[in-house]
Amino acid sequence: MIFESQTMNPDNIRIVLVNTDHPGNIGATARAMKNMGLKRLYLVEPQQYPAPEAVWRSASAADVLESAVVVDTLDEAIGDCQFIVGTSARERRIPWPLLDPRRCAGQVAANSAEQQVAILFGREDSGLTNEELQACNLHLHVPTSPDYASLNLAMAVQIVCYELRMLQVSQELPAEADHQWDAPFSTRENMERFYVHLEETLTDIEFLNPAAPRQLMPRLRRLYGRVRLDEMELNILRGILKETQKWARQAKGSSR
Amino acid sequence: MIFESQTMNPDNIRIVLVNTDHPGNIGATARAMKNMGLKRLYLVEPQQYPAPEAVWRSASAADVLESAVVVDTLDEAIGDCQFIVGTSARERRIPWPLLDPRRCAGQVAANSAEQQVAILFGREDSGLTNEELQACNLHLHVPTSPDYASLNLAMAVQIVCYELRMLQVSQELPAEADHQWDAPFSTRENMERFYVHLEETLTDIEFLNPAAPRQLMPRLRRLYGRVRLDEMELNILRGILKETQKWARQAKGSSR
Repeated sequence: MIFESQTMNPDNIRIVLVNTDHPGNIGATARAMKNMGLKRLYLVEPQQYPAPEAVWRSASAADVLESAVVVDTLDEAIGDCQFIVGTSARERRIPWPLLDPRRCAGQVAANSAEQQVAILFGREDSGLTNEELQACNLHLHVPTSPDYASLNLAMAVQIVCYELRMLQVSQELPAEADHQWDAPFSTRENMERFYVHLEETLTDIEFLNPAAPRQLMPRLRRLYGRVRLDEMELNILRGILKETQKWARQAKGSSR
Repeated sequence: MIFESQTMNPDNIRIVLVNTDHPGNIGATARAMKNMGLKRLYLVEPQQYPAPEAVWRSASAADVLESAVVVDTLDEAIGDCQFIVGTSARERRIPWPLLDPRRCAGQVAANSAEQQVAILFGREDSGLTNEELQACNLHLHVPTSPDYASLNLAMAVQIVCYELRMLQVSQELPAEADHQWDAPFSTRENMERFYVHLEETLTDIEFLNPAAPRQLMPRLRRLYGRVRLDEMELNILRGILKETQKWARQAKGSSR
């Protein structure tokens, strides 16, 4: 995976829509591609194109649409390609090499380093023909639910382009949810000072009875340990404790 | 990951669309969900709903649309949830716990085992408000291209639902492209017999000169070794060799 993500060249990857019926899907495909950093779109014999719906569904990816190459035959779209992937919805009579989008993205990325790669998407209703699929080195299948297996065309493009993007950037994505935090996380030392202050305050407001403390402090330690406080949060909480103590002491003073 | 995929309960996961503008996105969301095995859709204050476009964009996921829960406030949609994820397009002033769709799916799946989980998607133009995002335990960000970061709403739903589906099924997905092949792959023994037959035939047709064989056989061995022949393919090739030998011998006989 490291090798692949380092060598992937998005400029060597083209998305090929074959005989698309609905122009909205062409526009949505252009947007899906640009969102994921791809820009080479080929349209083989689109049924309604150009079309206004393609333009508005492409949103801010009109440039991808405008530079799309429209051709009459699949051969014109993939003639110069060295690695060809075809999306396949159903089992074929002759099994073909077949992978899911994630594993397929790995092969696409690796091959794109120094070769021209095409990913083919077929008609909305019937997909790619057997002949078109037999032009492919590898078939790709999205593991949809058996309850409803048929993906919208542009959604399938989105998933495949997303997997390529993840392959390219996933090394840089943080594994932890609390990366780039705005304050350093508290040290154990400061947490211990906080717990002392907390216990003192709870005693002051007579919520904690030192003679019968039960499991109160362990439960609060578990709570704040689970959340991992940062220094700013710790300061806020200690400020609240300080204020609380002040009011409690004042009240005790006035009632005496 | 193994733990998560074993315990994920799709019935405990709801997709919540907040204040959606375009009904087509609601329909496309229903389809994206059903394609990936999810069915619980909540619509908070949709701007145009019900709407015919939602129905036709849902295609064969009309059941998901029909059972969608339409409510006036976000609280009604997520009040009973124990783990809430919000999709976030941009950096927030106060950093929140944040993950990419893949890592987020892991947390959603694990929490869905025994808790109610909601995944929130905001408005087409402006996403979720800060207040809505602050209701979330975790934020989710799709790592789109900086050239065009704004995903279509239903596309974002598709990606997140796809990641959940992959988590559920990826253990079962074959790692190799040639799984479920229709014939066993050839043994080394049979490959060696084939190479002997191939060399013999190439000699018969005088393409190979045994006195100066050069690198012909090594190159052919590399070719067929790379492709890994199955037994059926091997039989086809040996049939071709046999027929070729017959014609070559016949021609030699007649020319004598």
